[in-house]
Amino acid sequence: MTAKIWTAALVVIGDEILSGRTHDKNIAQVASWLQVQGIRLAEVRVVPDDEDKIAEAVNALRTTHDYLFTTGGIGPTHDDITVDAVAKALGLPVVVHPEARRILENYYATRGGLNDARLRMARVPEGADLIPNRMSGAPGIKLGNIHLMAGVPHITAQMLDALTGTLEGGAPLLTETVGCWTPESEVADILREVEQAHANCSIGSYPFFRDGKVGANFVIRSTDPADLASCVDTLCEALGDAERDFTPGGI
Amino acid sequence: MTAKIWTAALVVIGDEILSGRTHDKNIAQVASWLQVQGIRLAEVRVVPDDEDKIAEAVNALRTTHDYLFTTGGIGPTHDDITVDAVAKALGLPVVVHPEARRILENYYATRGGLNDARLRMARVPEGADLIPNRMSGAPGIKLGNIHLMAGVPHITAQMLDALTGTLEGGAPLLTETVGCWTPESEVADILREVEQAHANCSIGSYPFFRDGKVGANFVIRSTDPADLASCVDTLCEALGDAERDFTPGGI
Repeated sequence: MTAKIWTAALVVIGDEILSGRTHDKNIAQVASWLQVQGIRLAEVRVVPDDEDKIAEAVNALRTTHDYLFTTGGIGPTHDDITVDAVAKALGLPVVVHPEARRILENYYATRGGLNDARLRMARVPEGADLIPNRMSGAPGIKLGNIHLMAGVPHITAQMLDALTGTLEGGAPLLTETVGCWTPESEVADILREVEQAHANCSIGSYPFFRDGKVGANFVIRSTDPADLASCVDTLCEALGDAERDFTPGGI
Repeated sequence: MTAKIWTAALVVIGDEILSGRTHDKNIAQVASWLQVQGIRLAEVRVVPDDEDKIAEAVNALRTTHDYLFTTGGIGPTHDDITVDAVAKALGLPVVVHPEARRILENYYATRGGLNDARLRMARVPEGADLIPNRMSGAPGIKLGNIHLMAGVPHITAQMLDALTGTLEGGAPLLTETVGCWTPESEVADILREVEQAHANCSIGSYPFFRDGKVGANFVIRSTDPADLASCVDTLCEALGDAERDFTPGGI
């Protein structure tokens, strides 16, 4: 029996990513965290601050994956519309979450008090739970398999930390890297043949140019530690036979 | 009459992005380049090295936007399947492009010669043109409104450079930034009201934490220089009236 592969999708929300002003850091951060939870990030969509576009992406992805995450648009200003968009996608009203309100009252007690803008961050689609955020008070939001998180990467990190170990996943995807000071186009046959001979493994090839020399890192991925080790051994042996200057562990 | 807004979508292809191993740099690079061409990046999808997933994303986006770009998966190894996936999406056969073959023969003449793996990089969906790449020989591919580019960011940059000025676009989106050493939640009303008073402008609010202090940058976007200047003036005036420590140009 093949073990279930748990998958997640991520919706990155924000005009600042699509304009090129802000370099996204959440895709890699969420992807790496999901790997450790035994969940595979299967698709990402980046959408603008537009209620319909956000709702469309959420509805396209929430039923086709085990989990859906969003980053961005849960702050206090007029361009923070993720909660409204997700509520719209699910046909739910937006309500003030009493515990979120209490958290924000405490947080802002010494910072000028709760105003209308700050109270926006206590709004949730009806029935939602909170994801704690020790950094800035304002919580993330969990509703069924949907997780709404901050756009600022170090706040997102806090929310992921709070979720660690709470989501059911499968065997984590394991990776090993083998580096080679040679153009990937000279060892393409080796890569393809070794991958074909190891059904539970995939090999990715990532070329680089460094110190005036061409090389590539080959990343072997598998959920089975024994298959992974066997594939790495076979690859190193094949590269060695071809008298390649390779390095287990990558370059 | 409202001027046409030209839009583009980007499909980022690669298991290495979805695993978190590689931090994507192409979204910001393509977005910034498109801005200068007067084309707005409207949506991004990140998909794995899977022919069906790539084809699905290409077909979902190529007709809903003026232009479609892809990055990744056009190299010489077995995991480079973008050409096959796009050909499948369009119902076209894959052929060897004679000019691409000639370029690769020249490039590899002093680098060990053309082999089967390297010849993969001359394969295109039938009817495609080439996008020059001075960096590594292997060209990008242009087919109607679809542009297939490299995944390695500095090669992508070469291909974008070769495309500069060749795509029809509208007025470039202009931006100005105003920074403020204050929590965005204290000036949320000002931001909303100023945006509402300037129909052709949008204001994004991007909080930060620096040197132990909280601040935010407000990015004003418009295709009309006069509207943009007027909106910036109004915003600075409103922040000044609120006795905020603000900085035109951003912090």
